[in-house]
Amino acid sequence: MKLSSTGLVRDEVGADTSGPVMRALGLIDTILRGVGQVMLQNNSYAGLLFLVGVFYNSALFGIGVLVGTLASTLTARLLGADRAQIRDGLFGFNGALVAVGILYFLHPGLLTWVCVVVAAACSSVLMAAMLNLLRAWKLPVLTAPFVFTTLCVFLATARFGRLHSTELLPSAGLPQGATVEGVVTGSTLLHGLFSGVAQVFFQASPVTGLLFLAGLLVSSRLGFVAAIAGSLIGALVAWGMGAAEAAIFSGAFGFNSVLTAIALGSVFLRPNMASLAYAALATAVTPLAYAAVSALLEPVGMPAMTLPFVLVVWVFVLAIPVFPRLKAS
Amino acid sequence: MKLSSTGLVRDEVGADTSGPVMRALGLIDTILRGVGQVMLQNNSYAGLLFLVGVFYNSALFGIGVLVGTLASTLTARLLGADRAQIRDGLFGFNGALVAVGILYFLHPGLLTWVCVVVAAACSSVLMAAMLNLLRAWKLPVLTAPFVFTTLCVFLATARFGRLHSTELLPSAGLPQGATVEGVVTGSTLLHGLFSGVAQVFFQASPVTGLLFLAGLLVSSRLGFVAAIAGSLIGALVAWGMGAAEAAIFSGAFGFNSVLTAIALGSVFLRPNMASLAYAALATAVTPLAYAAVSALLEPVGMPAMTLPFVLVVWVFVLAIPVFPRLKAS
Amino acid sequence: MKLSSTGLVRDEVGADTSGPVMRALGLIDTILRGVGQVMLQNNSYAGLLFLVGVFYNSALFGIGVLVGTLASTLTARLLGADRAQIRDGLFGFNGALVAVGILYFLHPGLLTWVCVVVAAACSSVLMAAMLNLLRAWKLPVLTAPFVFTTLCVFLATARFGRLHSTELLPSAGLPQGATVEGVVTGSTLLHGLFSGVAQVFFQASPVTGLLFLAGLLVSSRLGFVAAIAGSLIGALVAWGMGAAEAAIFSGAFGFNSVLTAIALGSVFLRPNMASLAYAALATAVTPLAYAAVSALLEPVGMPAMTLPFVLVVWVFVLAIPVFPRLKAS
Repeated sequence: MKLSSTGLVRDEVGADTSGPVMRALGLIDTILRGVGQVMLQNNSYAGLLFLVGVFYNSALFGIGVLVGTLASTLTARLLGADRAQIRDGLFGFNGALVAVGILYFLHPGLLTWVCVVVAAACSSVLMAAMLNLLRAWKLPVLTAPFVFTTLCVFLATARFGRLHSTELLPSAGLPQGATVEGVVTGSTLLHGLFSGVAQVFFQASPVTGLLFLAGLLVSSRLGFVAAIAGSLIGALVAWGMGAAEAAIFSGAFGFNSVLTAIALGSVFLRPNMASLAYAALATAVTPLAYAAVSALLEPVGMPAMTLPFVLVVWVFVLAIPVFPRLKAS
Repeated sequence: MKLSSTGLVRDEVGADTSGPVMRALGLIDTILRGVGQVMLQNNSYAGLLFLVGVFYNSALFGIGVLVGTLASTLTARLLGADRAQIRDGLFGFNGALVAVGILYFLHPGLLTWVCVVVAAACSSVLMAAMLNLLRAWKLPVLTAPFVFTTLCVFLATARFGRLHSTELLPSAGLPQGATVEGVVTGSTLLHGLFSGVAQVFFQASPVTGLLFLAGLLVSSRLGFVAAIAGSLIGALVAWGMGAAEAAIFSGAFGFNSVLTAIALGSVFLRPNMASLAYAALATAVTPLAYAAVSALLEPVGMPAMTLPFVLVVWVFVLAIPVFPRLKAS
Repeated sequence: MKLSSTGLVRDEVGADTSGPVMRALGLIDTILRGVGQVMLQNNSYAGLLFLVGVFYNSALFGIGVLVGTLASTLTARLLGADRAQIRDGLFGFNGALVAVGILYFLHPGLLTWVCVVVAAACSSVLMAAMLNLLRAWKLPVLTAPFVFTTLCVFLATARFGRLHSTELLPSAGLPQGATVEGVVTGSTLLHGLFSGVAQVFFQASPVTGLLFLAGLLVSSRLGFVAAIAGSLIGALVAWGMGAAEAAIFSGAFGFNSVLTAIALGSVFLRPNMASLAYAALATAVTPLAYAAVSALLEPVGMPAMTLPFVLVVWVFVLAIPVFPRLKAS
């Protein structure tokens, strides 16, 4: 092990990691990187600041993030997944989101916590499955395991009487043409800008959003700028197309755009003029994808979560090799 | 041809199969293996006992199984599919299920029987398509062609006035949070245990379940144990999460778990401690997947059939190469 | 450049294309091939006749086709896609359909035209993504980018108050078992036959259908025959299964069958007896797939568009390598 610019410690292949202190430090580092990977940051300091941001808003969700990350990480360890990938937090971030998602939409109780642990464990199986599935295209798995695992749990509330959803889970209905609701002001956009960043972890607090941005700044200046631009573009496009003021205020149209902007603006493309325009296009259509996925899931009463981000980034990353003006990084 | 421990006869490449008696025996063997493959058994004695189980409950369904298996097998023959795969029943089992599924959910009549034959034929095209699609990941096709073909037929009842569904086809609705209904007793679990096995062929009879178990015992002791454990785990998990008593009694939460347990417990993994735990996890989450798929399809009024089994096994098989503690067989 | 039997001009690699007149001609040729590719014809004369057919019925849709094809083609050019593929119209036909689809289902206005241009641009990204995704199976992308892009826009009307759908967009509902409505006569079938061809571009005019057929005849006699046979088979199967007379009259059950018949009858298979029967089976089940997709999308109030064609052709093309009696062309 040695000190690392991206975290507490860093395993080297063949290094001596036998000491219990080092092993504990290593696990903490792994967990924090897992939290960091929720915003595509392989950096335990970023993960720490994200965790602080969640705890600032809610201790329940903070504990959930730790339990979920631990459960999914240990599952991957027990099944013998690649050590380097585990240490990079790749088997942690979906568990983190599974936990906070379940605690957000289901009433906490023993069975809900059992669901958190089992679903976080399953998110690692799904992560492994999708790593294998998408390998041929070098396509990142992103938060797809979180989305599919939690959708499964939430859908099951319609058959299992002991799973109780909170009032935050949308109720099933038939989508109707929208009308413009409420008046968007500067304060709507400002609140939406920071809440949009916070909503990546289901937190609607602007302060949490600021702490998340601090975490991004520690890890990647480009990621920091992309997150702000993404949240702003998401809110502006939604406003321009006539989304409800309350939804823009809460950051609902921001968090997927934040993730799209980070992914295409700072992670998967080498920056040049073409890739900047490309990332901007992807970010600008993400609110549309959010609206579409959200309407698509309305008859089953399910939230879109980060599925729009996953779909948009998959499409835009898959297209890169066909467009030589863009360079994958 | 020679005698085979898994069936009446066995083609050898280049063997003399010119006699009409041998050819008839070969076709019968192929059909029975096709029926056996519904529970992943390439064994014509198992297929025979499954067929007896179906006929015990209903002659209509028994004839349907024969017609469907024959139609899908002959389609594959006419189009020149690989002889060995046809002889293993790989182009039969989806046809068998297509027939029994259509006869279960649509009123029998001339057009329904035409649908049975055409849909069984199409299930072989879909089988071929998915064999090609999934080859890169060595992923089994399972009963996906059956599920997609019959869903297509059932959905079409909403546009075609001459296709009449039985009252068994769910009516379309918006999923609501469930409450615990009925009291689960020992007799619920016992009935559910055997009906769960029988429901693999849409039969709700415990005696049929016993005949199916006899077929499994003939073919694979491990498969026999897995089927019982799977049905029991399905019923227990459903009970623990608050599923309706009537659904547990009828085996609705069992048949997908039976198939998952057979697939992961006795077919696709070499048995060791890790793979046993892995198969148990997959089997335990299958009722959740059943509840989720069932709720997802509620707005279009469609039954889940064996889609939950297909999805769970695909995920857990896809993940195997990423987890070295598990060995694919 | 040189004269070409399939269009105005043809780029040769390394040829001198520097003159402004030749470049303009080249762009016009590319746009017309894009329009032609809507019915799988890489032929600018066919494209011209299709365009005339659309303009005959509606100048708005005709202009839409030009704007959409231009937007998607230029996007592909700006991002550096393969010149030969662009010149073959492969980045044009989805843009053409995106434009006409959006103008058919949304009230025209500034924001709708912005959607047309952005969605057409995105259809080229999706085209590139799917070219990469499907390359391993040599599977054609077909009109999938059009379908997914426009579904996204139409679904978004449920969240964005400034997107207004026309009364042609289905309203969301729960699918019910159909009854036979209306009496099918010879005039129903004749009108349906030609409207079915016209509906490929959302035009319900038999005269437009005749102009489209003229375009096909110029490009491919086999394609011409396949289109007529496809439209007829679609209408006859729908009639036989009890579809509503109004739907058959309007060509709703024809346009997907037209495309399936062209694709499997004249493009992707080398003609022989087996492939003829195979193409006929695919064409005959396309109305069933149309009914199924249409019912599946009813709870979200979405039209099936050409998704049934895409799904059926994908399945039947994927299966070709498994069936040696069929030869891919």
